Amino acid sequence: MAENMRETTASMRADSFKMAALTNEERNRILKGIKEALISNKENIFRANELDMKNALEQNIPDSVLKRLKFDEHKLSDVTEGIEQLMGLPDPLNKTLLKRELDKDFILQQITCPIGVIGIIFEARPDALVQISSLCIKSGNCAVLKGGKETVNTNRSLFDVIYKAAVENGAPENSLFLAEGHSEIDELLKCQGSVDLIIPRGSNKFVQYIMENTKIPVMGHADGVCHTYIDVESDIDLACKVAVDAKTQYTAACNATETLLVDRKLSTADLKKIAEALMNAGVKLRGNKEIADLLTRNIEIMSDDEYNTEYLDMIISIKLVDGLDEAIVHINRFGSHHTDCIITNNKEKAEKFMQLVDSAGVYVNCSTRFADGFRYGFGAEVGISTGKIHARGPVGLDGLTTYKYKLYGAGQIVGDYAEGKSQFRFKDL
Amino acid sequence: MAENMRETTASMRADSFKMAALTNEERNRILKGIKEALISNKENIFRANELDMKNALEQNIPDSVLKRLKFDEHKLSDVTEGIEQLMGLPDPLNKTLLKRELDKDFILQQITCPIGVIGIIFEARPDALVQISSLCIKSGNCAVLKGGKETVNTNRSLFDVIYKAAVENGAPENSLFLAEGHSEIDELLKCQGSVDLIIPRGSNKFVQYIMENTKIPVMGHADGVCHTYIDVESDIDLACKVAVDAKTQYTAACNATETLLVDRKLSTADLKKIAEALMNAGVKLRGNKEIADLLTRNIEIMSDDEYNTEYLDMIISIKLVDGLDEAIVHINRFGSHHTDCIITNNKEKAEKFMQLVDSAGVYVNCSTRFADGFRYGFGAEVGISTGKIHARGPVGLDGLTTYKYKLYGAGQIVGDYAEGKSQFRFKDL
Repeated sequence: MAENMRETTASMRADSFKMAALTNEERNRILKGIKEALISNKENIFRANELDMKNALEQNIPDSVLKRLKFDEHKLSDVTEGIEQLMGLPDPLNKTLLKRELDKDFILQQITCPIGVIGIIFEARPDALVQISSLCIKSGNCAVLKGGKETVNTNRSLFDVIYKAAVENGAPENSLFLAEGHSEIDELLKCQGSVDLIIPRGSNKFVQYIMENTKIPVMGHADGVCHTYIDVESDIDLACKVAVDAKTQYTAACNATETLLVDRKLSTADLKKIAEALMNAGVKLRGNKEIADLLTRNIEIMSDDEYNTEYLDMIISIKLVDGLDEAIVHINRFGSHHTDCIITNNKEKAEKFMQLVDSAGVYVNCSTRFADGFRYGFGAEVGISTGKIHARGPVGLDGLTTYKYKLYGAGQIVGDYAEGKSQFRFKDL
Repeated sequence: MAENMRETTASMRADSFKMAALTNEERNRILKGIKEALISNKENIFRANELDMKNALEQNIPDSVLKRLKFDEHKLSDVTEGIEQLMGLPDPLNKTLLKRELDKDFILQQITCPIGVIGIIFEARPDALVQISSLCIKSGNCAVLKGGKETVNTNRSLFDVIYKAAVENGAPENSLFLAEGHSEIDELLKCQGSVDLIIPRGSNKFVQYIMENTKIPVMGHADGVCHTYIDVESDIDLACKVAVDAKTQYTAACNATETLLVDRKLSTADLKKIAEALMNAGVKLRGNKEIADLLTRNIEIMSDDEYNTEYLDMIISIKLVDGLDEAIVHINRFGSHHTDCIITNNKEKAEKFMQLVDSAGVYVNCSTRFADGFRYGFGAEVGISTGKIHARGPVGLDGLTTYKYKLYGAGQIVGDYAEGKSQFRFKDL
């Protein structure tokens, strides 16, 4: 490997063309090799993880975070199962998106291909390293991986096993690189020209920093201010169940609901029922004066401009709105274009909500927590995008590909078409 | 219209949801209205263009540029024909890219939708204003348009006609905006949050400036250093014909070939034949010492690191390479990932070239000048992208869309799936 990030990524770019040329069978063989190597080296990996866990305990890291750092038999079985699934998925490359005869003996094809070199900066979760590298291999991309410092030993151990198995099974030498120093992030951000895409995962502040400090395209999301809107025409028991799950099932996730919007036409009894369901689940409510006056018990007053708050905790903002239209305006203004849901029995209102809410995921009658690559059946995800360019929502294999146009000619020149000697005869094949 | 760019684009964002909700029939009706209005107001438009042409003549603008500034009966018929074609194209919106049952009564759909608000900065070519605004309308996007100052009168006249006809036929009030001052470009570049995408067209330096001065995603190309590689196994007459067209048919275009790579195994007689064909067409040759020694007549010596030069003129760089492999390495290093062609009779070599050259367009046996939305049968193009994120190559309607995930549930919560009470049963519909 080259000594600094610019040289490293330049070598990776050179190898990215070899990586792109591997067949699906060759990429699957690499994945199989990685899966087997992870299993046969598991004791070393677990030992490295014990070291990270010991360090984390000494630093009094909270239990909820410790659970994420852990890499044990259970997590190993999850990731190897994930690799197995990925091997079974159809090849995302060399798919023909368009095949068109422009004229006689003149065929245009639009064919999917890898993006090239992708830099992925992910949170302290060792299983993410395995998932991300497998996704990149299946999609024919080279990857620079940078994980959280809390699992530096586990990451190194996992990476060594993955890298060795990948290269032994035919991956180019410079297809994978593990960045370990924090300064390497800044170096990576300067590698435009050799790195095609950065995918940052982590805190709002961290992702904002990445987005503001690179010329390389960035795909991801800084925040997840997701909404659940409860329409007057809805089943209140269903609304309670979904709202509680959307808020509490895993509060640290970007797809957890942060704001509950309630139709002002709902009866006070129903409103109280919803509030109680949340409070009984341990959720603290915050709201503006109007709703606080109705829900006199246990609600913290907040100002109207705080409705863009992402709590990532057992806290929810709640607000009354004048039906569907105000809900849509509120979400488009205060939301983060991630995932928003309407609870309603009225199909027309549902369709209007889904049409006009400008988010990657627009749901009716289910928890916003479903916004996830696994739950969408993508096998895995490399992240979730709230941008509208390239991929949107959970990003699986398709989001890691681009395409090229291949044009097969027989000596055609533009002059003949410009002068009218030849005419295009477009025919989709 | 609001008074400054930030307010303007914020109003456009608010109207973008209305724009997105228009049906294909409604968008086609707007296009029809624009077409008819252009025809019935043509005398005013031509008069405005005469003023621009008069000013341009006074500034001694070269003939080749004058031709681009002209907007006459012929250009009008081109653009109205373009609108007619666009109306006939299938709706790029509300296409179902994926429909999957996640479980009983739980349907995921991936549906195409507009990007939102797009800022397009284009060169002094009034027909571009009509094409770009029609493409944006057909794809349900709002557009901020900024044209070249040389055609300010024509642009204003065209825009007034288009805007009035669009709104009269149902387009939202803030769906189109014409920016006229040069300072408005810098203001536009700061409108992240309300503008989703910037598409700059123009000189290398100008596009570089845009790319370096905005947080908004940019789609386009700064330069077009396209290559034609002539393999030893090729028909030399075909090679000459294609190379001459690729260089000379329209030198100012980004898809004109700037560098000719020639297999070192080609006979000197064949090499001279190619050089002569180019020189006879009025092209000046430049090359490194090796090729200059072979082509003693009329070749300017250049250094090896100048092979990234974009001439946009009747000049071509020429270089000998050690066959296909060196050609590929040269193109990936010196090229701009725009469009590159191999001239060969060997299908395997053609496929290898098309696989390994990292460009938006990879061609065999035809002119690089074919890289164009019209010639690909897209109806029109809003620009050409050399980036790999989102759209690549000529960008037509599809490149102006994104998608959202719609999830139709019946009260599903993630807790039930996490606890094993429910299981996903993925089934593509």
